Amino acid sequence: MERTEGEETVLAENGTTQENPKDGSICGFDSLHRLFQASLSPQLFQEVNRILLGRNCGKKVESIALPQPVKELSSKHYFDLQAFSFSADRESLREPRIVRVGLIQNSVALPTTAPFQNQREAIFQKLIPMIDAAGSSGVNVLCLQEAWTMPFAFCTREKKWCEFAERIDGESTSFLQQFARKYNMVINHIPRVGDFNESTYYMEGNTGHPVFETAYGKIAVNICYGRHHPLNWLAFGLNGAEIVFNPSATVGELSEPMWPIEARNAAIANSYFVGSINRVGTEVFPNPFTSGDGKPQHADFGHFYGSSHFSAPDASCTPSLSRHKDGLLISDMDLNLCRQLKDKWGFRMTARYEVYADLLARYVRQDFEPQVISDALLQKSV
Amino acid sequence: MERTEGEETVLAENGTTQENPKDGSICGFDSLHRLFQASLSPQLFQEVNRILLGRNCGKKVESIALPQPVKELSSKHYFDLQAFSFSADRESLREPRIVRVGLIQNSVALPTTAPFQNQREAIFQKLIPMIDAAGSSGVNVLCLQEAWTMPFAFCTREKKWCEFAERIDGESTSFLQQFARKYNMVINHIPRVGDFNESTYYMEGNTGHPVFETAYGKIAVNICYGRHHPLNWLAFGLNGAEIVFNPSATVGELSEPMWPIEARNAAIANSYFVGSINRVGTEVFPNPFTSGDGKPQHADFGHFYGSSHFSAPDASCTPSLSRHKDGLLISDMDLNLCRQLKDKWGFRMTARYEVYADLLARYVRQDFEPQVISDALLQKSV
Repeated sequence: MERTEGEETVLAENGTTQENPKDGSICGFDSLHRLFQASLSPQLFQEVNRILLGRNCGKKVESIALPQPVKELSSKHYFDLQAFSFSADRESLREPRIVRVGLIQNSVALPTTAPFQNQREAIFQKLIPMIDAAGSSGVNVLCLQEAWTMPFAFCTREKKWCEFAERIDGESTSFLQQFARKYNMVINHIPRVGDFNESTYYMEGNTGHPVFETAYGKIAVNICYGRHHPLNWLAFGLNGAEIVFNPSATVGELSEPMWPIEARNAAIANSYFVGSINRVGTEVFPNPFTSGDGKPQHADFGHFYGSSHFSAPDASCTPSLSRHKDGLLISDMDLNLCRQLKDKWGFRMTARYEVYADLLARYVRQDFEPQVISDALLQKSV
Repeated sequence: MERTEGEETVLAENGTTQENPKDGSICGFDSLHRLFQASLSPQLFQEVNRILLGRNCGKKVESIALPQPVKELSSKHYFDLQAFSFSADRESLREPRIVRVGLIQNSVALPTTAPFQNQREAIFQKLIPMIDAAGSSGVNVLCLQEAWTMPFAFCTREKKWCEFAERIDGESTSFLQQFARKYNMVINHIPRVGDFNESTYYMEGNTGHPVFETAYGKIAVNICYGRHHPLNWLAFGLNGAEIVFNPSATVGELSEPMWPIEARNAAIANSYFVGSINRVGTEVFPNPFTSGDGKPQHADFGHFYGSSHFSAPDASCTPSLSRHKDGLLISDMDLNLCRQLKDKWGFRMTARYEVYADLLARYVRQDFEPQVISDALLQKSV
């Protein structure tokens, strides 16, 4: 089963797709948001949004209008396009710090059996209208998905995919630099790095949790599996991040229920914005592989379900991009909201960092003794 | 507006309540789960469950049948009653460790102006059939809500509510001990303690993050606001907890969108079960108070939205109890799932605790320098 660019997916009235779904799900609906919008009365839809997306909890998340040429790029090149705005209270001493941020999710463009140079070039070509759409919309900071220049080959454990590795100032960086220059955008470029997993291809790093101070705010990148570690998110927060991107590659059966939970929890707990990006589509490899779960060998890793979205420190989040289509998600965010939420909830103020520092210092020692109280006494008294 | 026991709420066909909602929401639907069940086709409902509740992601969460007398208690005393089961894989060396756990959410029974002794006694009386239902269902470990013996008076900042404080071996403990003895249950009793918030009433503790080793597994209690701190959850995990209860008291406008996010994230990140309990109803106090948000004084804290539920380490969770009614939620859980998920995802194995210990040790020092990289160089090269 090869997946090709430009496959047509038609949204039916009830928000489900009419194509025979290829992602192993029973119903190929495009996104939960669109499904609920089509299935519930406006009043109930608003109430479900309040709970699931946090609308009305903090500030409202509003849709924003984009220029007509940008919309035309979206329909011509068949990518999902959505745009929202997280607002914050006006303050008397600080000006709003509104940044326009974009996320791009995309499928690969050619079969994984094509020459590597052609695969990369075809991805460049399909990204051009999407990056142009972001630039023409005034996006200040744009983040692509994990390992965006290639199929997500780390499941195969074959070494040949290492050929996709590049120098920091290689072809992919040059490709992005032209757009960064043209639109005065900060573009995050995350090719094939990772801290924790897929240990066939990389080792743990020792470069800490750096935060990048850009013209548009302090940003950081928590790659893929790093989202499962709350302390990883915390580390970026303690270093002052205001927006943390999580470029990922993950499939439905493995992680779809976890996908919004972890990002939104990080945004809440650390009072910053999170941009979550997942690739989309099914990538079929020439040589089958096994997953160590006793199931037969298979040539694809499963369906990458897209669903890229932004989460905000006030527990709100945007609707997600399509589970099936390439997409560009744009959001305005007033970075003052980070400080406002720190002031409102006081998590930073109330955290017992000295207690945790002490616990972790003890935990990593060989003689760590967990704090366990037996109920022998209770049993006796009962 | 006083809220009295036994108020009738009728579920309409579409899962919404017909009463005029008193919780400030537009539509008084009983729970998201029941709303989606009534509004979506069975196929779409199953798919929404897969994503929102994690069904089919790990092991399935199945409903379990309860004895008829228990169901009769539920209808006679008008409390929500739901029961589920989290299963785990069978193993060859370890027997299943199935524990039956219960959560109780309840509204207060008398107006807050009644004599305190009567208020407490009336709560005891309304809890008796619910605890009996848990005991008769074979519940091994039962957890009540935060400050269950009283209205949640900590919003008022009036000192008179301190009268509800008791000795550890006081009246409330005696009340629970008779049931613990009768049913051989472990009952968690959480009267008026707290780590972080409502500082009019309590100070930060220095008793660490104890885990209680009971006959039915290692349990811990993370009280209310403690759920907002991922490191608090982590600390219970490092001390070996298998089930962590989060007895809470929280209202819709403040936290409803955060409620499932934080508990489920904790269960995922720490590979244990979480039981989340929130009280239900609106509690009106004799003397109005303000909330420091510029809004007029008011005599109630808002609607406590119930919605108690269990989360599992495989990212699944049960449907929630009612947003309006008292309720007893029961779930079987095979504690082997904790270790199985640690083995599957490897979060404990891959966590860089030594890095975090070092970061936190530096962070609590006055001379902490965040790791920030300026993009001045990037700007120049672009």
